[in-house]
Amino acid sequence: MRDQLRAPKPLSLTAIDPRDTLGLAKDEAVLERSRRRLAELHQLLWAENARAVLVVLQGIDTSGKDGTIRHVMTGLNPQGCTVTPFRPPSEHEADHDFLWRAHAAVPGKGEIGIFNRSHYEDLVVPRLAGTLDDGAFDRRARQINDFERLLVESGTAVLKVFLHISKEEQRERLQERLDDPTKNWKFSPGDLEVRRRWDEYWRAFERAIDRTNTDAAPWLIVPADRKWARNLAVSRVLEETLEGMGMAWPPPRFDPRAYKVE
Amino acid sequence: MRDQLRAPKPLSLTAIDPRDTLGLAKDEAVLERSRRRLAELHQLLWAENARAVLVVLQGIDTSGKDGTIRHVMTGLNPQGCTVTPFRPPSEHEADHDFLWRAHAAVPGKGEIGIFNRSHYEDLVVPRLAGTLDDGAFDRRARQINDFERLLVESGTAVLKVFLHISKEEQRERLQERLDDPTKNWKFSPGDLEVRRRWDEYWRAFERAIDRTNTDAAPWLIVPADRKWARNLAVSRVLEETLEGMGMAWPPPRFDPRAYKVE
Repeated sequence: MRDQLRAPKPLSLTAIDPRDTLGLAKDEAVLERSRRRLAELHQLLWAENARAVLVVLQGIDTSGKDGTIRHVMTGLNPQGCTVTPFRPPSEHEADHDFLWRAHAAVPGKGEIGIFNRSHYEDLVVPRLAGTLDDGAFDRRARQINDFERLLVESGTAVLKVFLHISKEEQRERLQERLDDPTKNWKFSPGDLEVRRRWDEYWRAFERAIDRTNTDAAPWLIVPADRKWARNLAVSRVLEETLEGMGMAWPPPRFDPRAYKVE
Repeated sequence: MRDQLRAPKPLSLTAIDPRDTLGLAKDEAVLERSRRRLAELHQLLWAENARAVLVVLQGIDTSGKDGTIRHVMTGLNPQGCTVTPFRPPSEHEADHDFLWRAHAAVPGKGEIGIFNRSHYEDLVVPRLAGTLDDGAFDRRARQINDFERLLVESGTAVLKVFLHISKEEQRERLQERLDDPTKNWKFSPGDLEVRRRWDEYWRAFERAIDRTNTDAAPWLIVPADRKWARNLAVSRVLEETLEGMGMAWPPPRFDPRAYKVE
């Protein structure tokens, strides 16, 4: 699944179908099995206490970042699973380099960390605001690559997921947030402004992904119009990543036969 | 369930049976229903974005703090659920007052925070080390009460749970950690030293609970020899707490009819 989803170079988002179901079958039991396997692997990661996994979730409003976390990660033990939402930086955060708050939030040994939005906002938001020219953009991208390589070399698997929805699907989801009183809280009038600049947003993200799609920390494009396929794909990819780490129960640091509990 | 579990004043742990099943039936489906209900209530808490819940989990080694988190909280959305383990303080933490790191870790609006061990270690550990006399102990307890009252007055429900196991049950669980290679990693030879001082540990905790068992932030004693009863009791108590908050979907801060998604 990881190979299947790997972003091509160069990336053209229009060439990838957001409705693609990746050959997966719609079956809640399959997702449930995957979640259970993730919970087992997470327990091993925690026991081993040596390595970590960072999942970076990006995508436009309504692309399903929160929903993916709720449906895929909910089976994980909250002890050893941290979710960090990246909102517009506070004054204190803005007083530091743009990777400062990202670095502070990376998962520790044994943990799975999820970035809900991430340091990639610092490429795309100023780009749309017109304050990041090509040179400055590419320099930040290189700084991101250096930062992510540090993480990988220190034992953290980095998985970057772009949730890819169509403009029509976004229209339906935003309208639902207006029409359904239990979803009003998710709506912000500002979302419509971002929607109006859809093409610019895609171009900015294509450039961001092209510049940071490294073998150490690859970008995956997950078609996300179908929520069930999106959930299954992300769950599988996380499973593959953890399976690929070849974990085992850690040997005791003492001789178990030397002790008896009185 | 909350009333049933409320610690009596004064507390005598020997008077409470760790094998009590609280009239509950052993039925995995009941726990699963409770977990699902917790997930719904958590989503409401998150949407409301106004209040928080702090669960303080205490208990001697092997009493089941990690297991309770894994079995009860795993259904919660990891976004909006934080678990903070309290290990022996780092040098940097020890350079501050004992509530400094606890305060930094309290849940934000919309969140459920779990303390796996807590600021109560700072009553019990120095007490067993002989460095906290009655006066100093009671002053810290008063400082804890003041701190927890601040949280409650600021919209955070505080739920303090003592997991209550018998000495025989602990013997079995520690022995299993020695005998089962997949559990060796949970064992530390230091656990046996704490076990040898079982009675002192109980006395220290009885005093801690007596001094901090306030109506604002009550202590609950959960019989924990039977893991299934423990899980169900903690899940129910958390459910009751959230239900009691009388939450509703927040009204929109805008007129939904004023917008149409193009």
